Amino acid sequence: MENKVVDPTVQKALEKFRVLDEKISHFSSIIGLSDWDQKVMAPKKGRHTFAKAIGTLRTEVFKLSVSEEMGSLIDVLSVNESASSLDAVTMAKVREYKDYYQKAKTIPADLFQEYSILTAQANDAWEEARGTNDFDLFLPYLEKIINYKRKFAEIYGYEEHPYDAMLAEFEPGLTVKKLDPLFAKLRESTVSLLERIQQSGRPTPAEIFDQSYDVEKQKAFNRFILPLIGFDLEAGRLDETVHPFAQTVNTGDVRLTTRYLEHNVRSALFGTIHEAGHGIYEQNINPEFEGSVLQSGASFGIHESQSRFLENMVGRSKEFWNYFYPQIQNQFPEALENVTVEEFYRAVNTVQPSFIRVEADELTYNLHIMIRYEIEKALMAGEIEAKDLPAIWNEKMQDYLGVTPGTDTEGVLQDVHWSFGGIGYFPSYSLGNLYAAQILRKIKQDLPDFYYHIEQGRFDLIQDWLKENIHQYGKLYTPNELIQKVTGEELNAEYLVEYLEKKYSEVYGL
Amino acid sequence: MENKVVDPTVQKALEKFRVLDEKISHFSSIIGLSDWDQKVMAPKKGRHTFAKAIGTLRTEVFKLSVSEEMGSLIDVLSVNESASSLDAVTMAKVREYKDYYQKAKTIPADLFQEYSILTAQANDAWEEARGTNDFDLFLPYLEKIINYKRKFAEIYGYEEHPYDAMLAEFEPGLTVKKLDPLFAKLRESTVSLLERIQQSGRPTPAEIFDQSYDVEKQKAFNRFILPLIGFDLEAGRLDETVHPFAQTVNTGDVRLTTRYLEHNVRSALFGTIHEAGHGIYEQNINPEFEGSVLQSGASFGIHESQSRFLENMVGRSKEFWNYFYPQIQNQFPEALENVTVEEFYRAVNTVQPSFIRVEADELTYNLHIMIRYEIEKALMAGEIEAKDLPAIWNEKMQDYLGVTPGTDTEGVLQDVHWSFGGIGYFPSYSLGNLYAAQILRKIKQDLPDFYYHIEQGRFDLIQDWLKENIHQYGKLYTPNELIQKVTGEELNAEYLVEYLEKKYSEVYGL
Repeated sequence: MENKVVDPTVQKALEKFRVLDEKISHFSSIIGLSDWDQKVMAPKKGRHTFAKAIGTLRTEVFKLSVSEEMGSLIDVLSVNESASSLDAVTMAKVREYKDYYQKAKTIPADLFQEYSILTAQANDAWEEARGTNDFDLFLPYLEKIINYKRKFAEIYGYEEHPYDAMLAEFEPGLTVKKLDPLFAKLRESTVSLLERIQQSGRPTPAEIFDQSYDVEKQKAFNRFILPLIGFDLEAGRLDETVHPFAQTVNTGDVRLTTRYLEHNVRSALFGTIHEAGHGIYEQNINPEFEGSVLQSGASFGIHESQSRFLENMVGRSKEFWNYFYPQIQNQFPEALENVTVEEFYRAVNTVQPSFIRVEADELTYNLHIMIRYEIEKALMAGEIEAKDLPAIWNEKMQDYLGVTPGTDTEGVLQDVHWSFGGIGYFPSYSLGNLYAAQILRKIKQDLPDFYYHIEQGRFDLIQDWLKENIHQYGKLYTPNELIQKVTGEELNAEYLVEYLEKKYSEVYGL
Repeated sequence: MENKVVDPTVQKALEKFRVLDEKISHFSSIIGLSDWDQKVMAPKKGRHTFAKAIGTLRTEVFKLSVSEEMGSLIDVLSVNESASSLDAVTMAKVREYKDYYQKAKTIPADLFQEYSILTAQANDAWEEARGTNDFDLFLPYLEKIINYKRKFAEIYGYEEHPYDAMLAEFEPGLTVKKLDPLFAKLRESTVSLLERIQQSGRPTPAEIFDQSYDVEKQKAFNRFILPLIGFDLEAGRLDETVHPFAQTVNTGDVRLTTRYLEHNVRSALFGTIHEAGHGIYEQNINPEFEGSVLQSGASFGIHESQSRFLENMVGRSKEFWNYFYPQIQNQFPEALENVTVEEFYRAVNTVQPSFIRVEADELTYNLHIMIRYEIEKALMAGEIEAKDLPAIWNEKMQDYLGVTPGTDTEGVLQDVHWSFGGIGYFPSYSLGNLYAAQILRKIKQDLPDFYYHIEQGRFDLIQDWLKENIHQYGKLYTPNELIQKVTGEELNAEYLVEYLEKKYSEVYGL
């Protein structure tokens, strides 16, 4: 794609915009590497000092993004006559910077600084509150954060619901009006399915995981499957951290982490596959987007769809284990010698309501998200108050999942998100599941032998499809544009509902 | 120390200077971390792209260092009336930025850019030339580099010898006039000592190293001694690379690398101790200098003195092995069970002329440096030509060391330095040895039980002295100021001559 620009003012602006975009992207790449380093490699005594150094670079990126130069470039490149002569790639870049610029500019500088200090302190308070199971320690910070968020929503503006302004940060274009019916449909079917599973009287042999799985052998197995499922280890790394994550430096340098537990072989295994889903997405972005704002996933929800797709739709399929089970059985002969692949498959798809979101199974996970979504929505609308959250939380847990956490640490305090002001983030996780199921339906149309390919270990055919249809585009399309381009329709909850119904009917013989 | 500033113009300039210094230092810290990462951690497919990102940050640091703002701040803070009211710390910071600013400003931008491109290409050419033992591949680049360097010397200016302008970059204040007699004295005594060693007929049992030393056990031993000799592993790391180095992120994050060879236990052992000498220096710099240009060693030569002191004066002393030998013997019983500590000590101090500088022993090492020094000096003075270097090199090797390399790869092509334009760098290595011996003499006066402390493993007492007298000051003093402050006199070759004479007389029973 080429810009067909003749106007010399626009031409000049384009070149300046390219330089500025590249500088911001280069600095962001370095910040990404530094973040990874501080979590994975840095010795503890240097971290406090380094935080100041990286803070200086972050500030520089912020200043460049909201600079007068950026403002005037966006102005020049957004007016109709110029925009009509720009190619789609340039237009997408302008769109991204414009969104950020307009938002950042509407918040008064002192308000933003107060808020930044608050969230830094809130994170410490949350850690202490969770550690000591004392919600009251976190409450004053949470109340203030919600007040700020409500202020920000008013400043940003929104169509119908103040929560829309929060969603926009993580999933551009998504609103309460769109999300409510999607989640309602998913909730209804999930609760019903969960009930039938619990009444089925056909438990999975989940106890096969209650054994010792040698950590060194787990590491070997994880490194063995990573390249087979499509993650290029010459363009990335796999390390260990308590909280697994994926971090991109550039498309040739994508770093995953996982966590090995001797008595929980599933944790590293599905953690690694999940992060690989994020990582493969980033490795497959068009290299021409390198050094630009487009070198990133389309949205949090689309990113999560790629990790969920690989972890659940592929990694928890029967065909996946038909292919890999001999290897894992061979690696852990003592634990698995009397376990059939069918039993193993059923065990990795065990449904069991629990307190902790990050440990939840594929089915009940979405119920955890809906509880948070409803709470955040009501907080933003002023319908509930932060001080009542422990009670509301436990009530909803009982209502949706049939369990009540014994402590706030296992309940309302379990997630870090609110402490950094990440209201509107949680829905991304379930959006990921919804997108993934819709993409699954489409890929099965395009590759009728989808499951056969998995069974044959031909993950390359699947990754080629994902690259061709999703990964390569990076941030070129908005999430809504992308899902329509790929599947021909807007996000539709029906596909996840069908997928879960079919899968668990089979696993539990419903 | 406090600035007693009253003039509001100076007050304002001081605050701006502090902010600018901090920004440059923060960015430099991030560049340091990134350099380490690319050498130690980064997957290969991402490095080319990341080089562009880090290039952007380097350019930013350069622009800030030569910015108009920096120029006018230096002006304000350098005039007599302002300078007289500044504390020593601020004056040292101004001195550092002023030196750099004045130099950088004198080179026309286009000349500097041509030169930057040349050295990037020259490095590739050198690698190929060394790999294929073909000096002619590198020659045209080397000729151009020398031409540029001679141009730069004329632009920078110098007192007597154009090489002075090169030395200034690595060892401020040092000149050919000062260095010639130091090296002459050292050469004379070294050549004589080497002759006597070769005639002694009392070889060391160096063959004890021609055995297999398990790499995992080597790793364990290296990690065991590091904290004992003073390197804080909670404020640093030890990793592996082909070419060992030390890299500082900040005083709480200093990263060393080493290289383990199964059939060369000395390589990792003394390599680690050497890098630890650099690392401990950086860990001990006054934390108040953090985030400023002073958070670094005084010069290349002083830095090298700290690594050489720990590696040679401490790590190759008899008392060091009286303390550590039981542990290393215990670690490698098969290789060392019939070797006495006296034999081990003599073996680690084996003198053996050889072709490769980085593998040379403590005595002949300085002869390798002098060959390079004399060649560089003559090139800068136009007394010899680059095309004649292979012949000149081999002649000097025969003359000084009594050996002639079979190939240019083992001769004139062995070092990377000329390919990046690092003319003037080599003397730092021998300066390190000279400084170290002079410091040794002083520490033995202050701590008369110096060797007893080593024998007792009381490295803390030695490191406390080094911290108190050298490390804490970072870049506060120029190297010449520092050595005078510590030892009461200018650099004097006599101490190294005496030290080597005494040590090798004992080792070889002269």
